[in-house]
This record gives sequence, structure tokens and C-alpha cells, in this order.
Amino acid sequence: MVVGPGDDAGIFRYGNTLLVETVDVITPIVDDPYTFGAICTANSVSDVYAMGGTPLTALAILGFPSCDFGAPVIKKLLKGCIDKLEEAGACLIGGHSIEDSEFKFGLAVTGVVDKKGVLTVAGASPGDVLILTKPLGTGILTSAAKRGKVQKGVLNKVIASMLQLNKTASKVAVRSGARAATDVTGFGLLGHGLNIAKSSKTDLVIFYDKIPVMDGVKKFASLGMVPKGAERNLEFCNKDITYLKNLAREEILILSDPQTSGGLLIALPPKGLKVFARTAKREQMPYWIIGEAVKGKGKIIIK
Amino acid sequence: MVVGPGDDAGIFRYGNTLLVETVDVITPIVDDPYTFGAICTANSVSDVYAMGGTPLTALAILGFPSCDFGAPVIKKLLKGCIDKLEEAGACLIGGHSIEDSEFKFGLAVTGVVDKKGVLTVAGASPGDVLILTKPLGTGILTSAAKRGKVQKGVLNKVIASMLQLNKTASKVAVRSGARAATDVTGFGLLGHGLNIAKSSKTDLVIFYDKIPVMDGVKKFASLGMVPKGAERNLEFCNKDITYLKNLAREEILILSDPQTSGGLLIALPPKGLKVFARTAKREQMPYWIIGEAVKGKGKIIIK
Repeated sequence: MVVGPGDDAGIFRYGNTLLVETVDVITPIVDDPYTFGAICTANSVSDVYAMGGTPLTALAILGFPSCDFGAPVIKKLLKGCIDKLEEAGACLIGGHSIEDSEFKFGLAVTGVVDKKGVLTVAGASPGDVLILTKPLGTGILTSAAKRGKVQKGVLNKVIASMLQLNKTASKVAVRSGARAATDVTGFGLLGHGLNIAKSSKTDLVIFYDKIPVMDGVKKFASLGMVPKGAERNLEFCNKDITYLKNLAREEILILSDPQTSGGLLIALPPKGLKVFARTAKREQMPYWIIGEAVKGKGKIIIK
Repeated sequence: MVVGPGDDAGIFRYGNTLLVETVDVITPIVDDPYTFGAICTANSVSDVYAMGGTPLTALAILGFPSCDFGAPVIKKLLKGCIDKLEEAGACLIGGHSIEDSEFKFGLAVTGVVDKKGVLTVAGASPGDVLILTKPLGTGILTSAAKRGKVQKGVLNKVIASMLQLNKTASKVAVRSGARAATDVTGFGLLGHGLNIAKSSKTDLVIFYDKIPVMDGVKKFASLGMVPKGAERNLEFCNKDITYLKNLAREEILILSDPQTSGGLLIALPPKGLKVFARTAKREQMPYWIIGEAVKGKGKIIIK
């Protein structure tokens, strides 16, 4: 097991315990403070799940303009955080607040991981099946929502997806023998996919039509309503992407859309697929097989 | 052992291990990024020392306006952080950066603590001697320095004090049988002293003339050059302070001056004083006996 700079969390051995630790801070993506606290928490603990670990504790990091937001907002935010941590089996044991011009919230999370079940970005091998556990589009949809363009039903689905912990996805991945995973967050599917590809020294073939996308995302993308982060991500990744399918720029930008509390991207040896399918079914966990790892040097090929 | 809301760090039991965790984020108080990184690190790990613990790992939290600061500044900052962590015996295993309008840096730190050596704010008893391990004045002096009012020699001494880890102070306190400590930081000596007083349900008697103060502090305070934080802290604390000595407001404000990487305030049973003195001497650690805990309900009496 080697944990490298591209991994979702750091690992530290203390005695027989492997501590897995991560920190994440984000700006609000929904208006309701309780929901934002819960999404932020799901997003932060996700890095521990992406390493195959179990979160134990969290510390809150809060930046806010105290003139604009009072105690009731902070209380709701923390309630959302604590409830979601409870769902994850972890607890909030401290935190720090700082006066800030813009609202920010995040968590430093400590978990533990079993040596045999560590998932890293360097663990993929040619032949592995690529599995994604949440559809893409949280960046595009939450940006559109800020402009009041998203129907309530659609927005509720995005929020439900962001609130979903990657706890089950992590458990299913470890049980079925996966060695590589990452959570799809700020760098989009392409950025995090390339992270696996480069660290594992393989290429990843991704079948565009197999990629799950949230309702409304294609419409907003086709209207050019994509966050700047998606453009920046694509600019950064594009030299390492080979397109074997004819795609419009707005179709590609969906793949670089920055996700908040996105799903796990798992590279699974094919012999683990049966166990994966069975366990996922039992846990009622949706998943999508979107491609495979092939021999290569760290690129993504889109078919 | 009870760890409460006023303690410097949270404690979580995992198997036979007591994890001690804390997070702190601050804005720059010196111009040089290496020095700021190192001070910020000494300040963050201090909360683990204040609990009697040993830091193991740290996660960096960085907010910065990427247009104004480039990679060289961040590299120097992180080098200062990593060097100071090495001195503390801990290592940086991850972090998170976020675009911000103002520079901010901090660490989430995880350490371990021996059950028998936990220092809490609730552990003081009447009769305990109050010991402070660094002189006061970092807030007043760094504010004055920002206005170019502080001589280089004086400023260098403040910086040296902030760079000093509370590692030895923590070790000496635990070895000599202390049960209560806190580090003097943002709420000043009065704020953190009241934290011990209220949590321990004792009063603290502090002898004003015994309090160590950095060079230049009294001068700047008498000129009214005190940071707003000192005024806010005093306003918050004042109802719980009894003055048996005639002091000017600017003399009092030194006691509420917010400290960065301040010393430990230790409540030590008198029978531990010999060991404390002997160990401190061997470790070449300065300290000042500034008062004592007496029966009471959580107030500070200044004599």
C-alpha cells in the first residue's frame, strides 16, 4: 500500500491502527443552513470512505461574516453536520470559527482503515472495471439553481444525491475486492479519473453513453450554463484526454463539472463484479459501470 | 477525566488510545511566509500540548487570493509549517486549499494523550499554584509592528516567543503532577484564566506585578495602541473580574490582549512545585508563578 499525493486522505500508522485523515472546506451551494451543513459533512467524510475507511471524529471549520449571520443560522448548520455525522457513525469533537468575508464550512475528519481494505488512486490495474456510484451534474445544477433556473423537483434530487453518504459504496467496494477508488469532487470525473490513471499508470476507457447524468444537466450544459470550474478543469485535463467519439464541448464539460459530495469512482477487478452486484443489490445502492482500465500511461480515452 | 466545551482540544477513545484533536486557523501576523507558517503551526499544536498530549499528524488549511500570492509564497509557508511540525515530532499528511479574499492558514492536529496525564480546564483545585510559561503581549506588539512602530530587536523577541513550542511546558506540567492547563491565545490571559476558573469551579487570584510582559508592551498599551480584540475580550470578561489593585484601563488591557502561540497557564498542586522547578531548570524553560487558585465560583481576583 502506498498513499500518494493524489489520494483522498492521508494515512498514518499508530501502533496497529491506521488513521486516515482529511480536511475539506466549501462555500454554500444551497440556501438552507441545515442542508448545507449536512451536505458539507457528507462531502468531507467522503474522503475517508474513498480510502476504504470508517470515520470516527470530526472537527468543524467555520468562516462567517458575524454581522450578516447570527447564532440561529450557525446552530442549524451544525445540527445538519452533527446529524449527518451520526449517520456516518462519527462524532464532532471540536472546531474553530473565524471572522470571514464569505461563509465557509468544512470538516477535518479522522477515521480508521483496515490495512487489507485500503483503497488508493494507485491501485487500478488493466482489466479493472470502472464503476461510478452517483450521477454527475451537481456543479451545473447548483449553479443554475442560484440563478433560479432549476425546478424544485430536480433540485430536490440533486440535494438528495449530495446528502447521500458514500458509506455503503465504500463498504461494497472493499468487500468485492476493489483496490482503487476516489470520490468525484472538485476536479470532476475527468480530473479524478486522470488521478487514478496517472497514479496507477494505466489508461482509463470511459464510455460516454454509460455515464449517469442527473436530470436537467444536459439541458443546462447545452445552454452554456456551466460553472467556471468545469472550464478550468477541462483546460487542465484536456491534453490527457483522447476523444474517439464526436462530442460537443458542452457535452464534454459535463465530465469536468466540479462535484460536491459526488460518488465514488471505483476500479474493480472483474472477478469481484458478482460480489459487487450482489452486495449493492442487497444494500439498494445504485451504480453504473462506465468503462475499464487498460494498459497505458495515465490517459483517459472517451469512446 | 471530563473534557468539556472549554477545553483546548477534543479527546476520543479508540481502543486503548486516547486521540486528542484540535483545529485552528489564523490570519497573518508577520510578513515573512516561512515564519508565519512556523508560528501558525506552533499555535495549532499548542492545543494538543495544553491537553498534555503529543501531536502526531497535521492537515493544512489554506485560504488565499491566488491572484495576489503565487506558489513561492505557499511553498515557504508550508516549509515553515513542516519544519516546525518536525520539531514537534509530527508530520503533515494532507490539507485543503480554498480561494479566499484574505490570506488564512491553519492546521487540524491529531495527537495522543496518556489517560493519566490529561490536562483539562476543569482540573484546578483551591491551593493550586498558577504558572505561566510565556510573557504576554503578542497581540499588542504584532499590531504595533503592522504600523511599523516596533524596533527590530523587540519584534524578533516576540517572534521567537511565538515560534517556541509548548512541548517542554506540557511535559514539565504533566511530570510535576498538574491536572489543569490551557494555552493563552485569542481570549487573552483573563479569558483563558476564567475558562479554568469557571470549569474548575474555583476563583483564581492573580498578582498583577508577577505577570510577565514582553518588552515594549506597556509603552504601546499606555499610548492606547491595543488591538480591538483586547477591548472585546475585556468587555466579555469584566463582570467576572474583581480588582483589588488600582489599575489603569491600559494596564488591564494587557491581560486581555489576544495572544498567538501564547504560553501555557498551568494550575499545579503545590506539592508538584519542586519537581516542576527542577525539570524546568533542566529543560532551560522559563516560567512565572503568577497567582493561585482559591475557593470560589469561577471569578478572577487581581491583586
